Amino acid sequence: MALPLLQIALDDTVLENALSTAKAVADGVDIIEAGTILCVSEGVRTVSLLRSLYKDKIIVCDLKVADAGDVLARKAFGAGASYMTVICAAPIATMVAARQVADDNGGEIQIELFGSWTFDDARQWLDNGIRQAIYHRGRDAERSGVSWSSEDLDKMKRLSDLGIELSVTGGIKPQDIHLFKDINVKAFIAGRSIARAADPLQACNEFKEKFREYFKA
Amino acid sequence: MALPLLQIALDDTVLENALSTAKAVADGVDIIEAGTILCVSEGVRTVSLLRSLYKDKIIVCDLKVADAGDVLARKAFGAGASYMTVICAAPIATMVAARQVADDNGGEIQIELFGSWTFDDARQWLDNGIRQAIYHRGRDAERSGVSWSSEDLDKMKRLSDLGIELSVTGGIKPQDIHLFKDINVKAFIAGRSIARAADPLQACNEFKEKFREYFKA
Repeated sequence: MALPLLQIALDDTVLENALSTAKAVADGVDIIEAGTILCVSEGVRTVSLLRSLYKDKIIVCDLKVADAGDVLARKAFGAGASYMTVICAAPIATMVAARQVADDNGGEIQIELFGSWTFDDARQWLDNGIRQAIYHRGRDAERSGVSWSSEDLDKMKRLSDLGIELSVTGGIKPQDIHLFKDINVKAFIAGRSIARAADPLQACNEFKEKFREYFKA
Repeated sequence: MALPLLQIALDDTVLENALSTAKAVADGVDIIEAGTILCVSEGVRTVSLLRSLYKDKIIVCDLKVADAGDVLARKAFGAGASYMTVICAAPIATMVAARQVADDNGGEIQIELFGSWTFDDARQWLDNGIRQAIYHRGRDAERSGVSWSSEDLDKMKRLSDLGIELSVTGGIKPQDIHLFKDINVKAFIAGRSIARAADPLQACNEFKEKFREYFKA
């Protein structure tokens, strides 16, 4: 099993702050995500700016697309995104339209798991050439005290057993990493726990140490 | 039953084009929507520009929010939106967080109906002070040939009977309006059928004639 990658989610509402965070953590992360809040605040130009600064990183455009998959994918991948997110509630036609644009650009689609979805849905995504999904403990759910449950972990295990490559997000801390050791995690996504650390690079290293401890290659 | 309102969805990817369309149709519509594609392309500033130009119109910020309801609602309503959309797959905590910000700003939340949702969900939205929903024939579904079905219309009728105020969208033409005559429609949302008409104001009037014909006050 490959070591998980570390992804920083840039969720500022101001471009200057996001670029500052990116600069502080870039040497410690594998993937830089232009979060939904940032994309909404500043537009998809955020992605092209990040691409111009970090040519060798994986860059995620987290639009949580629900419709118009082709148009939004052309915006995201045209701006230099490596991956673009589509919400699980989107029609399969939207997912396929987005995936076709991703294919044309050497990119990939990630399905963001929110609310209602089924393992049959996951099989349909795989059948349509979409291999990645993001398992998300929502920020609002997190605030209201819902933690990582064994139900969450069981679902993640079933998804990865189906062949889905999972990225995991939602207030993850280094001390949570052991919970996921039996799951094929492609990436752990952190935001404030890295961005607001006294030493952001050290915060990245604490994650990576846990990756090596619990995900032996 | 009140006459439905007419809403233009600005779905350009370039701000200049969107503002040009808005100017051409403003006198014929009640509601101006900054579509997801536009918000993603140009950022939420689109909304504040529209507000500065059209102080008396209802303005919708169509973000299809799936998480971080409070932050995104502050961006949208802070920019002058009247309504902001939240995807039906969002956690109820996200919807409530967004609605609280809407309340503080005299605005409203609209639930965008995509993929899986239930009438129990709709009752939960109402119980949490959210009265509006958008019934959406997705662009990709529309392209792949899925039309307005009696199943669609039955679902809309059930939702409006529950007390949900519905906006209806997805390639609607004036000749479709009669299909909805038994449903309490708050607004019909048109995009290209108005924006790309030879005479956009005349295209608006064709909708409004049908509203008067089929939705007698």
